[in-house]
Amino acid sequence: MEAGEGVSGTTPTEEMNGAGNLMDFLDEPFPDVGTYEDFHTIDWLREKSRDTDRHRKITSKSKESFWELIKSLLDAWSGWVVMLLIGLLSGTLAGVIDLAVDWMTDLKEGVCLTAFYYSHEQCCWTSNETTFEDRDKCPQWQKWAELMTGHSEGGGAYLLNYFLYVLWALLFSFLAVSLVRVFAPYACGSGIPEIKTILSGFIIRGYLGKWTLLIKTVTLVLAVSSGLSLGKEGPLVHVACCCGNLFCSLFSKYSKNEGKRREVLSAAAAAGVSVAFGAPIGGVLFSLEEVSYYFPLKTLWRSFFAALVAAFTLRSINPFGNSRLVLFYVEYHTPWYMAELVPFILLGVFGGLWGTLFIRANIAWCRRRKTTQLGKYPVLEVIAVTGITALLAFPNPYTRRSTSELISELFNDCGALESSQLCDYINNPNMSRPVDDIPDRPAGPGVYTALWQLALALVFKIVITIFTFGMKIPSGLFIPSMAVGAIAGRIVGIAVEQMAYHHHDWIIFKNWCRPGADCVTPGLYAMVGAAACLGGVTRMTVSLVVIMFELTGGLEYIVPLMAAAVTSKWVADAFGKEGIYESHIQLNGYPYLDVRDEFTHRTLATDVMRPRRNDPPLAVLTQDSTTVEDVETLIKDTDYNGFPVVVSRESERLIGFVQRRDLTLAIKNARQKQDGVVSSSVVYFTEDAPQLPLSNPQPLKLRRVLNLSPFTVTDHTPMETVVDIFRKLGLRQCLVTRSGRLLGIITKKDVLRHMAQMMNQDPESIMFN
Amino acid sequence: MEAGEGVSGTTPTEEMNGAGNLMDFLDEPFPDVGTYEDFHTIDWLREKSRDTDRHRKITSKSKESFWELIKSLLDAWSGWVVMLLIGLLSGTLAGVIDLAVDWMTDLKEGVCLTAFYYSHEQCCWTSNETTFEDRDKCPQWQKWAELMTGHSEGGGAYLLNYFLYVLWALLFSFLAVSLVRVFAPYACGSGIPEIKTILSGFIIRGYLGKWTLLIKTVTLVLAVSSGLSLGKEGPLVHVACCCGNLFCSLFSKYSKNEGKRREVLSAAAAAGVSVAFGAPIGGVLFSLEEVSYYFPLKTLWRSFFAALVAAFTLRSINPFGNSRLVLFYVEYHTPWYMAELVPFILLGVFGGLWGTLFIRANIAWCRRRKTTQLGKYPVLEVIAVTGITALLAFPNPYTRRSTSELISELFNDCGALESSQLCDYINNPNMSRPVDDIPDRPAGPGVYTALWQLALALVFKIVITIFTFGMKIPSGLFIPSMAVGAIAGRIVGIAVEQMAYHHHDWIIFKNWCRPGADCVTPGLYAMVGAAACLGGVTRMTVSLVVIMFELTGGLEYIVPLMAAAVTSKWVADAFGKEGIYESHIQLNGYPYLDVRDEFTHRTLATDVMRPRRNDPPLAVLTQDSTTVEDVETLIKDTDYNGFPVVVSRESERLIGFVQRRDLTLAIKNARQKQDGVVSSSVVYFTEDAPQLPLSNPQPLKLRRVLNLSPFTVTDHTPMETVVDIFRKLGLRQCLVTRSGRLLGIITKKDVLRHMAQMMNQDPESIMFN
Repeated sequence: MEAGEGVSGTTPTEEMNGAGNLMDFLDEPFPDVGTYEDFHTIDWLREKSRDTDRHRKITSKSKESFWELIKSLLDAWSGWVVMLLIGLLSGTLAGVIDLAVDWMTDLKEGVCLTAFYYSHEQCCWTSNETTFEDRDKCPQWQKWAELMTGHSEGGGAYLLNYFLYVLWALLFSFLAVSLVRVFAPYACGSGIPEIKTILSGFIIRGYLGKWTLLIKTVTLVLAVSSGLSLGKEGPLVHVACCCGNLFCSLFSKYSKNEGKRREVLSAAAAAGVSVAFGAPIGGVLFSLEEVSYYFPLKTLWRSFFAALVAAFTLRSINPFGNSRLVLFYVEYHTPWYMAELVPFILLGVFGGLWGTLFIRANIAWCRRRKTTQLGKYPVLEVIAVTGITALLAFPNPYTRRSTSELISELFNDCGALESSQLCDYINNPNMSRPVDDIPDRPAGPGVYTALWQLALALVFKIVITIFTFGMKIPSGLFIPSMAVGAIAGRIVGIAVEQMAYHHHDWIIFKNWCRPGADCVTPGLYAMVGAAACLGGVTRMTVSLVVIMFELTGGLEYIVPLMAAAVTSKWVADAFGKEGIYESHIQLNGYPYLDVRDEFTHRTLATDVMRPRRNDPPLAVLTQDSTTVEDVETLIKDTDYNGFPVVVSRESERLIGFVQRRDLTLAIKNARQKQDGVVSSSVVYFTEDAPQLPLSNPQPLKLRRVLNLSPFTVTDHTPMETVVDIFRKLGLRQCLVTRSGRLLGIITKKDVLRHMAQMMNQDPESIMFN
Repeated sequence: MEAGEGVSGTTPTEEMNGAGNLMDFLDEPFPDVGTYEDFHTIDWLREKSRDTDRHRKITSKSKESFWELIKSLLDAWSGWVVMLLIGLLSGTLAGVIDLAVDWMTDLKEGVCLTAFYYSHEQCCWTSNETTFEDRDKCPQWQKWAELMTGHSEGGGAYLLNYFLYVLWALLFSFLAVSLVRVFAPYACGSGIPEIKTILSGFIIRGYLGKWTLLIKTVTLVLAVSSGLSLGKEGPLVHVACCCGNLFCSLFSKYSKNEGKRREVLSAAAAAGVSVAFGAPIGGVLFSLEEVSYYFPLKTLWRSFFAALVAAFTLRSINPFGNSRLVLFYVEYHTPWYMAELVPFILLGVFGGLWGTLFIRANIAWCRRRKTTQLGKYPVLEVIAVTGITALLAFPNPYTRRSTSELISELFNDCGALESSQLCDYINNPNMSRPVDDIPDRPAGPGVYTALWQLALALVFKIVITIFTFGMKIPSGLFIPSMAVGAIAGRIVGIAVEQMAYHHHDWIIFKNWCRPGADCVTPGLYAMVGAAACLGGVTRMTVSLVVIMFELTGGLEYIVPLMAAAVTSKWVADAFGKEGIYESHIQLNGYPYLDVRDEFTHRTLATDVMRPRRNDPPLAVLTQDSTTVEDVETLIKDTDYNGFPVVVSRESERLIGFVQRRDLTLAIKNARQKQDGVVSSSVVYFTEDAPQLPLSNPQPLKLRRVLNLSPFTVTDHTPMETVVDIFRKLGLRQCLVTRSGRLLGIITKKDVLRHMAQMMNQDPESIMFN
């Protein structure tokens, strides 16, 4: 069994703990009172009230001296400073990644003679050729075969290029998977399921550490460059969150409060998407709709700022060389027509079906990886998949190039000067060439060839992506999903276009498509298809549409995009409510209380609380009659996270709740530093020491660690209300009473297990507490 | 004192109740168990659990027969059906309003001879003139003076036009204010503060009624056409919410559940903004960021759908005749430069200052209106303000036209064919005319005249808007705020442009502005200024930027917009955290628990709960020893909304909570229908009847109306946690216990009063319970 990974693999408890230990030296070395253990759930209410205390202290101090005032101002602004730093660093990293990926992707095919560190495009910028076609073939850029044998054409050169393409791909992916395995097991996968879990209030130490940041950045470049069917958006979100975590450690406000830290991480996630696509607003919405758990308005504004700075930094680095933020800028020259909604909605249906297929197949495959021998050979798996990908991708021009380039070409409208195969239409000889508004034309042989190649590329992408997502390398889902949708959309678009051209007289075309007019834009269909497929996989809606139009600048096409996104969501939801991220969370058994699951069963708190009917009674402490030894025995014998404190075992009236960790630390501390505390000392939680015979040893006051306002519900409270309370208040546990008497306790784990039970899932899959 | 109005005026309790009665006949006539009284707060948890019960019932029934299955499917889809209907109706209404406003605004100046119901633009569409200038002067359209006297030029004609302009304005506004006063007092104002309050869980009967819908639609047209400094966005949100409320009554799922109803209203608010600006995504975000209180992801998707349908309906009606969704479409030909961030941020500062000034001055004026004689003459006030507005607006060409047209012109870049005064630059005679990318040119005399007129318009708009917002007619804030910003922005833009032209050699211009290049786009400055001013007033950020770029299509300018929005928010927040809507909510004393107010004081639940130290003890019922008469006396003597039920007065152990309304109805019912229930009958809430002597009359079991899971906190719970719980769970009241004993009660009113106290506000301003 190997050490740690995130998305899939062996049972998470074992291996994630292993990984945690590996990383521990980078994180807080001395856990203290008020911190949490690894793989435990945080208590949001407690974190919040700790922050308010801190804030109050600073505010009252700030009136004392000028220096304290400055300090309080610095504290107030530290949130914005962290955002600024996150924006700057994640923007820079994204720029560097883009440049490196560009170079290394081209390296698989050839090299620049003037400077080996130039990508194909950069190499030919300096070239004197004027048209795009010629510039593509500039003499400074040589393919490997040409460089080695001097021949650029012919079967031998093709085979040599093919061989080197596969070799480079294998080298990159081998490097990536090795780095991940050796240095940072958490760096694999997209990271979004884990980040969702962390943001919902779970501790996974090292998941957002410095090593993960470094290794994920490097291996992301390698993985994308290797030509595997994966994208960089998810990993970039993870990278940005690592940046966020890094900068949190600069300010005690954030480093010492898990609740505040999560506010920063939510904003960092927004910055991540912002730089992945140059879509700052989309990033904020993605963080809100998809990733975050607790997202107050303040975080909305800060996310907005971080996303802005990140996008701006990326723009300043200008990796695409077009000083645009927009990744796939499109400009269509015709509006869309009402009747086109039919194919758009069909694309939505396709997207929904693709989403369902992908999620089911991918989860089944990942489960198989976890449970069979397969999971033991992650390096071999990556090598094998890369080999197959590269071997199958090279012969097809639409899969050979990088997926972003493919999407970009599919989105584009065919201008008059376009030379690609996809734009090989038969021109009317009478037409004057350089106009933008070209009427619909019959497709030429190039288009038909392209259609076949695209269809093959579609099947290839669909199959290979299922096996790629979840391997032990950084891998995002957005780009492959969009590619699938864009290919399907473009095919549909060309079909509709040709139908409209050849059958002007059909009733559906009659109203909006005169002969000689430009009616159908196949690129728009590709865009809609991409949105539909992405929506089917992730179940985003609003953020999806915003990302799509920030990505393309196609504000006019909001209605088609929305129609496809909503259809795709409906169709996919009909087969199963969960998106890919929730499915992976469930697969890995993370304790994630999804806000979307509606709990509608009729159970009551009394059905869920422990102790159950035949269990031993609840482990409680009394307010003034337990000895130190009793407490220590209780701690040793049980593994509960905390213990309720009652007036007496007879009355069972609840006083408060004490955390196991705090209790242990307090007693250890007292034994070391406080004279007279021995095993038979009475522990008391009341204001005043209890009346004890003089012969008794000195009692130990522990009111300090007692939470006097534990959360209680009555035994008759419906579980749906309890679930709601856990979700909205971010509780760790909740005590159950009946007419003032303590009856039992419900923990987050109990809630999750009960929900899984009621939904007929395997309750044992929830591993953590 | 007159009957009812929303935003300002006399104390709301009296007059809103009055208005409530006026409207009551349109709403549910027989309030029942489980409904709420007017001006009371709803209990979100209770509504939610009632809906789950209903849902459960339908699901279990659906297995019984095919018909029930169909019914359950219909029920499941009814949410989407309501959204569809809201989208269709609000889109249609918005289209009709746009057309009517267009026509009536032009009616103030002249009339179309071919068809009196044509607006100026429609009238001249059919004209043969080709250029825009000539088309503006098409012979079919005649100004009043020309029509009446035959002269179109000269002092007499000018005065006659002036006179008629003022007369029409007065007529429109008089009609508007009269209709509002007579038929629907709730139709005045923007409506957003009240909708925010309603969405937070407050009942204002009739506020979203059919009459309000009808009258607000009609008077909105009149108010906007009268040329007053007001917009239509806020009222359109109100109109859309009225549509939402209307369609809720079609489905018992929504009409009988105040919680579900509010989900629909949140989505309707999104549809309202969507049609006000043709900004569907902006609408959803506005609803999320600004208006809504409880906004689950499901509502996000539904809002999105409603906004989409509404925008699409509006586009089909096509009121602007350009088949664009976008209201102020702009197309700039140059990117912006880093150094321009300085003026953009300065515009942000201006926006923040304007926001502060406007909010303070407007609130002061509204308070004066409420407290002095002024409030007694709303019609006179509207007439006076309209008169002043019209008199001052006519002479200045920038204030005479409608505010939307003004904003549109200010946003526009000066093309080569532009003929407006603002584009009167001195052209280089060597320049070939019809190019888009015109270099910066020196300003001509027209530009200087325009600058003066704009400066006067700026002062005029700033002053008059303060007095307009809050009068007894429908009035929105977006358009006037944007106008102020756009004017200021354009002035700054022209200044920077001329500086850059005349001082190419200055170090700040040197890097980005060669002579003969097109460096500065004054229209962009207007756009940024508009965003900054709108942000200062409303404190929106993300939704603001999205609305701005949906409004203009200027996706490339997201960074300047964000920079200005964030600056404006910072500056305005430094002077006071509340936006205009929150200020009006506070002014009117609505019980609104703002999610943005952070409560950081050190008080505990015990400091806030009632009874206070010297108060009489808490009014409680015992579980099995109170008689019917005792209960009736208690109900008569107190006005609490509900009573805790305890085991006995000695033990004070809490059993549950019973609503006053339910108790009254249950006893009344029992007295009428149940034999043997007399005044001395014992009321019991336990499972089994208490052991009573045989001589006693038959006891009355009331467990049915008892809430067995009342919300409790301990007396040591910090108030910040209590505030958080009230906010997140939407509680109405919460019981306070100490070690299982009932100590007191905290209601939402207590929380609000305490927060106001701690923030040194007048706690008596919170009027409702």
